Amino acid sequence: MEYVKKLIRDVPDFPKKGIVFKDITPLLGDAKAFARVIGAFAERIEGKGITKIVAIESRGFIFGAALALKMGLGFVPVRKPGKLPYQTVRESYALEYGTDAIEMHRDAVQPGERVALVDDLLATGGTLAACVKLVKRVGGDPIVSLLVVELSFLNGRQKLEGHEVHTLITF
Amino acid sequence: MEYVKKLIRDVPDFPKKGIVFKDITPLLGDAKAFARVIGAFAERIEGKGITKIVAIESRGFIFGAALALKMGLGFVPVRKPGKLPYQTVRESYALEYGTDAIEMHRDAVQPGERVALVDDLLATGGTLAACVKLVKRVGGDPIVSLLVVELSFLNGRQKLEGHEVHTLITF
Repeated sequence: MEYVKKLIRDVPDFPKKGIVFKDITPLLGDAKAFARVIGAFAERIEGKGITKIVAIESRGFIFGAALALKMGLGFVPVRKPGKLPYQTVRESYALEYGTDAIEMHRDAVQPGERVALVDDLLATGGTLAACVKLVKRVGGDPIVSLLVVELSFLNGRQKLEGHEVHTLITF
Repeated sequence: MEYVKKLIRDVPDFPKKGIVFKDITPLLGDAKAFARVIGAFAERIEGKGITKIVAIESRGFIFGAALALKMGLGFVPVRKPGKLPYQTVRESYALEYGTDAIEMHRDAVQPGERVALVDDLLATGGTLAACVKLVKRVGGDPIVSLLVVELSFLNGRQKLEGHEVHTLITF
């Protein structure tokens, strides 16, 4: 993953002063790097009997949709509140200040379905932990989560104990 | 595309009263339908020398990223203002009331690159026309646009005269 890692760009002071943002857009623009990420994700779910890819808005859509196509699986979007048109389930999670929430369509995952969750970044783990809960709420089985980048100093894995998490690149 | 069309669900009164929203999530959840859409898009750009897929946040990411992977092309996200971390170009466009805007990274498309634009829906055409302008602003060549659904009664193609547009399903 050294080739891929070199295509992640540091952008200082985004989204606010003092934060160094890991910009994955150079990776996305490089067809070889993008294919390597999706190939690595595919290896990690092969043989697990996964039936749906659930991906988190909106960078998660990019990796999740490509993986769903490659593996011949259905794709499920998880979005910010008010974006999904049909009946939804919702989970809130804590931010540094206040709370946020995500939603999934109630009928997007059927009881017993084996789900792989996809997002670009594991930071504090709050969003991903909420997404795992959403899948369970509708009776699905959240088998594994796949993320491109892990910011290990934020200890996001602590929120995901007992859940299998794979990340490709760690900072 | 009859198989795909049946998986687009009408949701009345979303996002506001009187509007019937075309919900593509059942299509996304069906692996065969999703693959058919991406396959149809691939056919429409084959032989055109496309080098980048530019897709519009956030449902456009789902189709654009899968197409980029299938065709072995780089992927470029176009987003709402303030979401992209690096230097951007911006285009505003008119809404029913007021204006909105989209941004693209300045370095995401190189001069002379041949671009296919991807989104889920052609409605009034305002967002897509702005996206065509963004690609031109950085010196790229917007060759063709690919959209899953067209709401033909909104006459979106009027805003895109002289630009090649393909849609798969028309309402």
